[in-house]
Amino acid sequence: MLKVAILGGSGYTGCELLRLLLGHPKVEVTAVTSERLAGTPISDNFLNFRNTDLKFEPLHLETLVNAADLFFLCLPHKASQETVAFLDNAGKKVIDLSADFRLKSAETYEAWYQTPHLYSPLLKKAVYGLPEIHRKNIKDASIIANPGCYPTSAILGLAPIIGKDFVDTGPVIIDSKSGTSGAGRTPAQPFMFCEVNDSVKAYGIAIHRHTPEIEQELTGIAQKDVNIIFTPHLIPMDRGILSTMYVRLKKQTGLSDIQKLYHEFYNNEPFVRVLKDGVYPTTKAVKGSNFCDISVFMDKRNPGEATLIIVSAIDNLIKGASGASVQNMNLMYGFEETAGLLSLPPSP
Amino acid sequence: MLKVAILGGSGYTGCELLRLLLGHPKVEVTAVTSERLAGTPISDNFLNFRNTDLKFEPLHLETLVNAADLFFLCLPHKASQETVAFLDNAGKKVIDLSADFRLKSAETYEAWYQTPHLYSPLLKKAVYGLPEIHRKNIKDASIIANPGCYPTSAILGLAPIIGKDFVDTGPVIIDSKSGTSGAGRTPAQPFMFCEVNDSVKAYGIAIHRHTPEIEQELTGIAQKDVNIIFTPHLIPMDRGILSTMYVRLKKQTGLSDIQKLYHEFYNNEPFVRVLKDGVYPTTKAVKGSNFCDISVFMDKRNPGEATLIIVSAIDNLIKGASGASVQNMNLMYGFEETAGLLSLPPSP
Amino acid sequence: MLKVAILGGSGYTGCELLRLLLGHPKVEVTAVTSERLAGTPISDNFLNFRNTDLKFEPLHLETLVNAADLFFLCLPHKASQETVAFLDNAGKKVIDLSADFRLKSAETYEAWYQTPHLYSPLLKKAVYGLPEIHRKNIKDASIIANPGCYPTSAILGLAPIIGKDFVDTGPVIIDSKSGTSGAGRTPAQPFMFCEVNDSVKAYGIAIHRHTPEIEQELTGIAQKDVNIIFTPHLIPMDRGILSTMYVRLKKQTGLSDIQKLYHEFYNNEPFVRVLKDGVYPTTKAVKGSNFCDISVFMDKRNPGEATLIIVSAIDNLIKGASGASVQNMNLMYGFEETAGLLSLPPSP
Amino acid sequence: MLKVAILGGSGYTGCELLRLLLGHPKVEVTAVTSERLAGTPISDNFLNFRNTDLKFEPLHLETLVNAADLFFLCLPHKASQETVAFLDNAGKKVIDLSADFRLKSAETYEAWYQTPHLYSPLLKKAVYGLPEIHRKNIKDASIIANPGCYPTSAILGLAPIIGKDFVDTGPVIIDSKSGTSGAGRTPAQPFMFCEVNDSVKAYGIAIHRHTPEIEQELTGIAQKDVNIIFTPHLIPMDRGILSTMYVRLKKQTGLSDIQKLYHEFYNNEPFVRVLKDGVYPTTKAVKGSNFCDISVFMDKRNPGEATLIIVSAIDNLIKGASGASVQNMNLMYGFEETAGLLSLPPSP
Repeated sequence: MLKVAILGGSGYTGCELLRLLLGHPKVEVTAVTSERLAGTPISDNFLNFRNTDLKFEPLHLETLVNAADLFFLCLPHKASQETVAFLDNAGKKVIDLSADFRLKSAETYEAWYQTPHLYSPLLKKAVYGLPEIHRKNIKDASIIANPGCYPTSAILGLAPIIGKDFVDTGPVIIDSKSGTSGAGRTPAQPFMFCEVNDSVKAYGIAIHRHTPEIEQELTGIAQKDVNIIFTPHLIPMDRGILSTMYVRLKKQTGLSDIQKLYHEFYNNEPFVRVLKDGVYPTTKAVKGSNFCDISVFMDKRNPGEATLIIVSAIDNLIKGASGASVQNMNLMYGFEETAGLLSLPPSP
Repeated sequence: MLKVAILGGSGYTGCELLRLLLGHPKVEVTAVTSERLAGTPISDNFLNFRNTDLKFEPLHLETLVNAADLFFLCLPHKASQETVAFLDNAGKKVIDLSADFRLKSAETYEAWYQTPHLYSPLLKKAVYGLPEIHRKNIKDASIIANPGCYPTSAILGLAPIIGKDFVDTGPVIIDSKSGTSGAGRTPAQPFMFCEVNDSVKAYGIAIHRHTPEIEQELTGIAQKDVNIIFTPHLIPMDRGILSTMYVRLKKQTGLSDIQKLYHEFYNNEPFVRVLKDGVYPTTKAVKGSNFCDISVFMDKRNPGEATLIIVSAIDNLIKGASGASVQNMNLMYGFEETAGLLSLPPSP
Repeated sequence: MLKVAILGGSGYTGCELLRLLLGHPKVEVTAVTSERLAGTPISDNFLNFRNTDLKFEPLHLETLVNAADLFFLCLPHKASQETVAFLDNAGKKVIDLSADFRLKSAETYEAWYQTPHLYSPLLKKAVYGLPEIHRKNIKDASIIANPGCYPTSAILGLAPIIGKDFVDTGPVIIDSKSGTSGAGRTPAQPFMFCEVNDSVKAYGIAIHRHTPEIEQELTGIAQKDVNIIFTPHLIPMDRGILSTMYVRLKKQTGLSDIQKLYHEFYNNEPFVRVLKDGVYPTTKAVKGSNFCDISVFMDKRNPGEATLIIVSAIDNLIKGASGASVQNMNLMYGFEETAGLLSLPPSP
Repeated sequence: MLKVAILGGSGYTGCELLRLLLGHPKVEVTAVTSERLAGTPISDNFLNFRNTDLKFEPLHLETLVNAADLFFLCLPHKASQETVAFLDNAGKKVIDLSADFRLKSAETYEAWYQTPHLYSPLLKKAVYGLPEIHRKNIKDASIIANPGCYPTSAILGLAPIIGKDFVDTGPVIIDSKSGTSGAGRTPAQPFMFCEVNDSVKAYGIAIHRHTPEIEQELTGIAQKDVNIIFTPHLIPMDRGILSTMYVRLKKQTGLSDIQKLYHEFYNNEPFVRVLKDGVYPTTKAVKGSNFCDISVFMDKRNPGEATLIIVSAIDNLIKGASGASVQNMNLMYGFEETAGLLSLPPSP
């Protein structure tokens, strides 16, 4: 059994990650840390764990370093930097769910996160952990930068066609709708029930930190500069991200040809489902699962200016965070890629 | 007191319209019809009316025609056509909340609604009832085609800049999020609580019937052809539409200059609030009111390809339907334009 | 115009109170205070006020005392004590929405609220502001202790029969379900969207502070000791309280006779609606209104042990707080009792 | 592998049952029927099954009888009677999730369900499938009457103390709050999103059909007549039942003694968790799981009339239906009782 530890396990992502790891056939969870809740049973904080015995521990790296071979980091960005460096230095493998090692350029990181990157040499070593794009490198990685939730939904939705010659070079519009768990567990006015319930709003327009991450990856896939316009929205639901993406076409291309591209691109992917023509993804259909559902539409009323509309749906806490990190672990350790990730979610 | 009747009053829109008319200082509601509920007290069907005595009547036009001077029609599209013609012929004024007289071209109507338009000569007589755009004509109209909910949110969001020379001529992206009341009161699987709750989905991509309505009006304002890509979404909330609109700019223009255009355009409008720079509209802030909140953002990271992001929020049942129809009535009869429309909504 | 001020206006109750007072034909709001938000426009904090100009002021009693004749206090319990005393001493009238002057016994107050009552002589002067029970005294009062939300729903549901000879003397069961706004606006983990959404729980069993308040008033009405068992529950909705009450009968009495008692008791009440036999109250039907809907049922399968089941529904922020306080003001100043309280609420 | 079939698999319960059976290590699902959806892929109707290949079949008993050894019936009550009889006659085992074989008295069944019982001799053969109470009989049963959702929550909450000498003989109050999936998938006005959302109501007071079922089982456990007063409520959430139960005590008994009774009673039960003193069950903590959480409180302010307040929480679709039926199957076939039922549910 692979020994794993979760550093920073008191948030929604840490909780889901723990759930997945406890159900995984090949791993043993040896420690879960939380500074704030150290010493308290996990079951007192996460009620779905009521029949488990685990306790939160303080984050003493010197002690913990020997407890596991693989460390999942659910720490805030900036705090993650030093911890990744420490564990890497100790010869441990790390899957970092923060944003600290996702951007290849320290400069870009510093501009968007307003904090220096103190371990920029490690940026090269870190692999962006989106298996559908970087599977090969993930297998050999010792540091995984686990993708952000919005980027996962956007990149998977655009990967099969970005950079193709029929695609206009103007910015791609990504209009995303997220459940409230994406905002984390820390109490804050805007995420109180009465503020979120029965309402919808946009936020972070043109300034959301997932923007450079999406652009970096799409540029990598396209092999040419890709610009995006990214607008996240807050939806009165617990989980899920639905991204609606708009891509102008510069050359007439049939919808069925493009749908075929999608089917081929994801043909062997265990967690991406390209839906039948005309079927709409919903976040409820992927809630509780590691799946990404994608459907492709076209507005061809104006042949000269046809626009592709791609809709993708993921569970932000699973495919957008904890599930992806387990998928990465499976690849790193040669486990079945779907191990621990295929239990069917409850519905509705 | 102006005598008014509501034909087709058993839906969510009819209910809200009745509420507004009962609170209006200048009108008397003389009849509310419902074929299905004829004979039953309105208070048995709409619980917020529990202390009123009104009853639903059957829709006998010959009888009803003498009951009122102004008729609000909340009938399904197609059914509305004949009723509008009958009442117009009888010299009555009509505010039609269906789609039957919104499109100036019978051909376009027939293409999108898949039914013939049997009274196309009346299309010229009908005025599209969006006061912010057609106030002058509304005052003299005898047939008002009350705007659709999505079109109201989109047109108000785009009117100040559409057709300006700094705007690219490519299609405008309109990504709208609607509460579930927009789907009406008739029981249907997709709108059952367990289907809608805790989920979000897109629908009607590239085929939604509000598309030609939005294009017609934007083209009229721009004085040149405007194409749109329109994607509606279903949100787990009762009411509200948030539209996020993306407009590519072809000439560098400052955000503050554009915001100034918005402030000027809506300066004297009683029901459009252009929010301060950086403040986000929410549907909850306009819920229960006739207001439309608008905010304008810009993604100028790529100066050559700056994109304007406009967000508008309305209550789909009020500014998007019943409230707009009362505003139209106020204009038609020389009442204060805000009469019956200014009571502050509860919050949260 | 009566000059009124709201002290502590940054919570959900203060917001609703302000809304009602701004729509009231006989009053002028001269000040709204908030320590935390002093100096900021109210419209920045409560979005439904976006088109108003009011600002929050600091709570300087010496300055404010001259600003109004009537003061509404939406301060936390304990903080209210001193302010009520100060204003009373200055000859001002006060409607206190906190719990500080509701309990006639300082000893009981101190036992349940774990804090001394420093102005107990004023307890006699204060009138418990439930118009349906204490209308006459309210008219002459200068200090009103505005009832709690749960107590309002429970007392109105039980008043017509409590103490009657057909009622068993054992404790009355009050099982209440409340929307989340009752917990206030201050950020706290248990009221975050993801904690409340799609769930229900009980809390404060056998220890909720509204217990002695309900018992005091029911004992007063019954003219003999009444004990209750009170269980509040948290429901994933913004507003509303539904109380389901269970009263054992010791003497066989017909349901229709008891329903008649209810109809008679509330016959002239403008804000209590006793529903027809078999019709269920819902919180949505009273949302946004000052109404209390009540329905009475009986389980008579075991004639010797028949149980009355009474269901009442109110909007916790209106009839359970701000609306009741306006109703009290109307009585104190000889305004129409329903003034400012009859606008129909939006639905759904 | 045990061959099983689901008859009537197009509702929420059938969907959850299928999910659990597909994840079960010892069974193979050979058929799922739906008259309405026969021929269509299950994945088109239940989106969480998007990556499965199953299709709905028509309900031809003559064909199906050979397809499986055990049949799960998710048919409407009344329709179930004949099917159970047919399968029993053919020597097959049946777990009937309808109400048709739960009540031991055909007379009581006919009174509450307003339809004759045509196979009353089978009532004796059927075992009420609540493992915590009837485990021994379940093991040998060939017909299981799977318990109702409300009864499960109520009986488990009361079993440890019902009939004890410290309990008053008057009726037990059971106030239950249920998610909307309990109403099924068939479209109906009262369960439309806009009717349920942001509201709460009681229904079926004193006439709900689960009443005699609860009384039958509690009477069996108590070994003396038990009467209940049962009030169900509809909550704006997908799943879950929270039952708050009130039991008057006639003899002074300490809370900790009673809590000890609960701990002992459920000591070896794999799916009942008696929570620590003062900890509240929530439906969210059991959502997606087969657990029943129970907590016991006491109002002892009036020693002579102490009242026990017991709160239980289950997932109505799992422990209240499909999960219980799998637990029963496990017992009938000698599988591990928890087989297929222990995967941790997502949270939040």
